[in-house]
Amino acid sequence: MDKKITIYDLAKALGVSAGTVSRSLNNHRSISDKTKQRVIAKANELGYQTNKFAVNLSTQKSNTIGVIVPKLNSIFMSDVLAGIEKTVNEAGYNLIISQSLEMMEKEKLNAKTLYNSGVDALLVSLAYDTNDFDHFAYYIRHNIPLIFLDRVHNLPNCSTIIINNKQAGFEATEHLIEQGCKNLLCISGNLKRNVYSERLMGFKEALAKHQMKFKKSNCLETELDPNDVPKVINYIKNQKQAIDGLFVASDTFAAHCIKALKKEHFRIPEDIKIIGFNNDPISELVTPPLSTINYPGYEMGVLAGQSVISQLNGSLDLQPANSITLRHQLIIRESTHI
Amino acid sequence: MDKKITIYDLAKALGVSAGTVSRSLNNHRSISDKTKQRVIAKANELGYQTNKFAVNLSTQKSNTIGVIVPKLNSIFMSDVLAGIEKTVNEAGYNLIISQSLEMMEKEKLNAKTLYNSGVDALLVSLAYDTNDFDHFAYYIRHNIPLIFLDRVHNLPNCSTIIINNKQAGFEATEHLIEQGCKNLLCISGNLKRNVYSERLMGFKEALAKHQMKFKKSNCLETELDPNDVPKVINYIKNQKQAIDGLFVASDTFAAHCIKALKKEHFRIPEDIKIIGFNNDPISELVTPPLSTINYPGYEMGVLAGQSVISQLNGSLDLQPANSITLRHQLIIRESTHI
Repeated sequence: MDKKITIYDLAKALGVSAGTVSRSLNNHRSISDKTKQRVIAKANELGYQTNKFAVNLSTQKSNTIGVIVPKLNSIFMSDVLAGIEKTVNEAGYNLIISQSLEMMEKEKLNAKTLYNSGVDALLVSLAYDTNDFDHFAYYIRHNIPLIFLDRVHNLPNCSTIIINNKQAGFEATEHLIEQGCKNLLCISGNLKRNVYSERLMGFKEALAKHQMKFKKSNCLETELDPNDVPKVINYIKNQKQAIDGLFVASDTFAAHCIKALKKEHFRIPEDIKIIGFNNDPISELVTPPLSTINYPGYEMGVLAGQSVISQLNGSLDLQPANSITLRHQLIIRESTHI
Repeated sequence: MDKKITIYDLAKALGVSAGTVSRSLNNHRSISDKTKQRVIAKANELGYQTNKFAVNLSTQKSNTIGVIVPKLNSIFMSDVLAGIEKTVNEAGYNLIISQSLEMMEKEKLNAKTLYNSGVDALLVSLAYDTNDFDHFAYYIRHNIPLIFLDRVHNLPNCSTIIINNKQAGFEATEHLIEQGCKNLLCISGNLKRNVYSERLMGFKEALAKHQMKFKKSNCLETELDPNDVPKVINYIKNQKQAIDGLFVASDTFAAHCIKALKKEHFRIPEDIKIIGFNNDPISELVTPPLSTINYPGYEMGVLAGQSVISQLNGSLDLQPANSITLRHQLIIRESTHI
């Protein structure tokens, strides 16, 4: 690999001192505009690279916003990113994205990488094992806007954007009860993640409201991976009291369950009613179409983008622990409704 | 926003000249190791940020690899990124990702942003309107490895990783013909994108091989967006000679077509046979399950990651215009087979 261009190469090419080059690139007041322009032109020509130099020399802005998400493998997350991208692009910012793969250690590395690449702001949806937040300290110390979305933590001066997962879980569960279900099963994702544990809380509240006792057997924790389907089907078949309603924490996993249950001659919704979560495209395409909760990913992204741009422009100063909650929506289709 | 720390702040805090700080951070041989360590410690303490300083001072490496993809909204693309991420992480590199949203102008900006953030290598899947490649010139000039995948262009010294879309299109089409279809329709994506135009070439070749004349009416170009479904269904219903086989360029769109055709009382596969493309999870979940072409996204990502790491380590020196082609696979399910 070629050695990258340094300020010494620039100085040599221009016949000035390295200090002059450095001060020019840092827009120091001791350097004339004419010299600054010469240095910048030469730096551009030779491909000198430094984030400070990137776009806006006078304000030291990179016009780049960083995002850390757990994984890029869901429609929800791609919707969130599309919403962020649209909003920040319109304001003249570019987006760079990294994934933590649900590991705090990798999230730390991402936070450092994005800091070093000079982002003007950071948006984060946390990994599920993240339990300390020191890796965001640099951002806070340097007043670089930091916003959490969906999987959040409350830090001073950082706003959060969420939906009310507990209320959504409550509504999905109450819908099953209102359709006549007597013995419900909540098929949850990993309960270390706040979104899943909060949906389970809503599930429990709905049972309590309708005088149905919550037993441990009413919840099955899974990784929501297709490989978990046989375990779920066995679990359902082996319950003494027949399960007649499923609240499944993801539409894709619910679609897999529908397919497997049909193969076992369960009739949906007659024998067992099923509601999913997210309103992914698949929920409309399975047979029968799946009732679900609309989880507004794109709107969440737009709002996150708007918040961050407002903070960068100074037009909005979100207060510490300010939290924005988006509206979710129950969508009833044939999987719960005869 | 606070002003970021400059080398002048560091110089003041350390009681040395700015030149000494700059040379220390650039690992200049004129500076003692002891001084370099003092400068680095102080730079860390105050949060001085420059990409060169990021991880590996002696080699000027950032240990970061950049990726530009058209969009993050497909299972295929998230599989590709998962494969890249795994491979480069294991080699000690971090990944940052940006999306061009299918626009060359944004791709240019992404290439610049990632260059400025100091990536050690760049992986690109091109936007469909990209028709000049000057925005990659900096990478080539500075011997920063540049690899194209899936949507590719041949540049000197840049390797490409693809599947044989033409052959895959041929096999999908020949499968329909062998199942007895007499009047086929290819529902394509935007034909400016090489992947779609190549699949159409394969479609035409299969027709020619089986003495079936290709007419303009055998292909319908769409954006593969759910909103295009009514147009497609009308088109199918209004053909004089009944269409009995569909080759659809995406599984999700094929699933939407299945749903709409069933509503119009077409029997699948009896009246009309359908094959998709990609082997997305949805292909297994629709009724009837969808025949498709397995397009190995994860493997493509792993291979791209391995190529780039090998180039960075100097253990593999890919020759100009070297191209790696992955194996695809025809998967037969009930949508084409009674």
